[in-house]
Amino acid sequence: MPFADRIRHCNSYDPARAVPLLAGEHRVGWLRRDNAELLKRHGKVFALKRNSVRLKVSGNCEKVSRAVDGVVEALVGDGKVPKWRNETFDVAPRWGEKPLFRLDRGAVPFFGVRAYGIHLNGYRRDPGGYSLWIGQRAKNKQVSPGKLDNIVAGGIGNGHGAAATLAKEAEEEAAIGPELISRAMPAGALTYRMETKLGIRDDVMFVYDLELPADFVPVNSDGEIAGFELMPLSAILERIRTSADFKFNVNLVILDFAVRHGVLRPDDPEYLDVANGLHRPLD
Amino acid sequence: MPFADRIRHCNSYDPARAVPLLAGEHRVGWLRRDNAELLKRHGKVFALKRNSVRLKVSGNCEKVSRAVDGVVEALVGDGKVPKWRNETFDVAPRWGEKPLFRLDRGAVPFFGVRAYGIHLNGYRRDPGGYSLWIGQRAKNKQVSPGKLDNIVAGGIGNGHGAAATLAKEAEEEAAIGPELISRAMPAGALTYRMETKLGIRDDVMFVYDLELPADFVPVNSDGEIAGFELMPLSAILERIRTSADFKFNVNLVILDFAVRHGVLRPDDPEYLDVANGLHRPLD
Repeated sequence: MPFADRIRHCNSYDPARAVPLLAGEHRVGWLRRDNAELLKRHGKVFALKRNSVRLKVSGNCEKVSRAVDGVVEALVGDGKVPKWRNETFDVAPRWGEKPLFRLDRGAVPFFGVRAYGIHLNGYRRDPGGYSLWIGQRAKNKQVSPGKLDNIVAGGIGNGHGAAATLAKEAEEEAAIGPELISRAMPAGALTYRMETKLGIRDDVMFVYDLELPADFVPVNSDGEIAGFELMPLSAILERIRTSADFKFNVNLVILDFAVRHGVLRPDDPEYLDVANGLHRPLD
Repeated sequence: MPFADRIRHCNSYDPARAVPLLAGEHRVGWLRRDNAELLKRHGKVFALKRNSVRLKVSGNCEKVSRAVDGVVEALVGDGKVPKWRNETFDVAPRWGEKPLFRLDRGAVPFFGVRAYGIHLNGYRRDPGGYSLWIGQRAKNKQVSPGKLDNIVAGGIGNGHGAAATLAKEAEEEAAIGPELISRAMPAGALTYRMETKLGIRDDVMFVYDLELPADFVPVNSDGEIAGFELMPLSAILERIRTSADFKFNVNLVILDFAVRHGVLRPDDPEYLDVANGLHRPLD
């Protein structure tokens, strides 16, 4: 089942290899055990037990963030966190709640905190079926260089909501202006948890659909996309089935598009594993 | 979080109160422990262990079905299965695979085997927003009498696929003919597992959307629906939030419609729990 393989690839997380990161009564991250070990020398900020790591610093968001930043600084120095991204993500007990602290994006997989992003399916509906505008990621991207991507995608930085992030990224990544992006329709949330070289990605992708006019051509202005191509959805699905050309999580976004728009159909034996597998529980 | 409460209600299953029903190398059902005890006197068909029940009969589908039917007969006699429904569901290791046996619909919750159904959102898109045609279930229905329901819904009986079941039920329940129902779009699968008086419901709902013409009015011909009403989606959502007027699982189907059509939106703090909670893993 090749479609299900793409989903499995994004859910390579193995609970036996990780311990929870606790803050007060909340579980806010998952630390791979080797990463947890590295926090031993930061005993003022983190308390290690056999099966958990606890954040010891309490207080307001600024105070906790400063303490964690000190640890991140050391991890960057040791090469355990690749580099500062100078963009912070909120770390909250749940979506929509007040953040306990803010964490540099570069350290998010190290601590395995849940990260939220937006993905836009920019599509056209022609007599022959759906086509999607697909971007090719720049060769110098840190994550998945050169891979195929949605027309617009991006992480939700601290204090920004989903809709605001979508509008900002749409403008920068594809020259989709405010009027056009206001027609984008939110269509659900996909979830996966994946072990990577850096740690654990515990990701939520808010997906949006936008039907694009026939004369629209995306133009990238932030250097993150090398080029765009309009591809028939049938060809995209075939490529997802037979190659790893698409960025790992973009496979999921496009499979979800095909499920929601009736291109994959229930009487296909693969259907249920795909439709269900895109939604890992938020435990 | 009232929307999430509707989802929780459909996921009342507690693993501590159930044991797996095994057939060969497959887990094909979940028996509540009190129901499992009742199988002790059917030792030729089922082998009880402390934490599982195993189907002992093997062979072709007809042979196994006959053996299980003998047990169902006794359970109906004892009032543990309410009655024969004279409609059988396939029991297979997975969706789309060959059935190991067939089980009368009346006994499906007793054994906790996975059941598959279709639900249709019959909607209109007017300038003021979406409206859905909603049915009221007949007062003599065994399950959820008098509750509000989708315009069309039904279980997938043995050997029938999802699309064929949709077409048949659309004709019988709402006088939606073959041409109109052929425009219905499959849009995903919702899953839940719920303990009921009878046992455990382990349900998959294949959801379809159908945009209905302004002059279309549904007419029921099988006596299962007392009447239909066209309701604004905003009013339906308010009623879901504040009442138990809708059949338990229909709440989920309509919440999913609201998520997929951008009526519920990501920046709502409830959004993620709803969008994710509609998809229980297929374990």
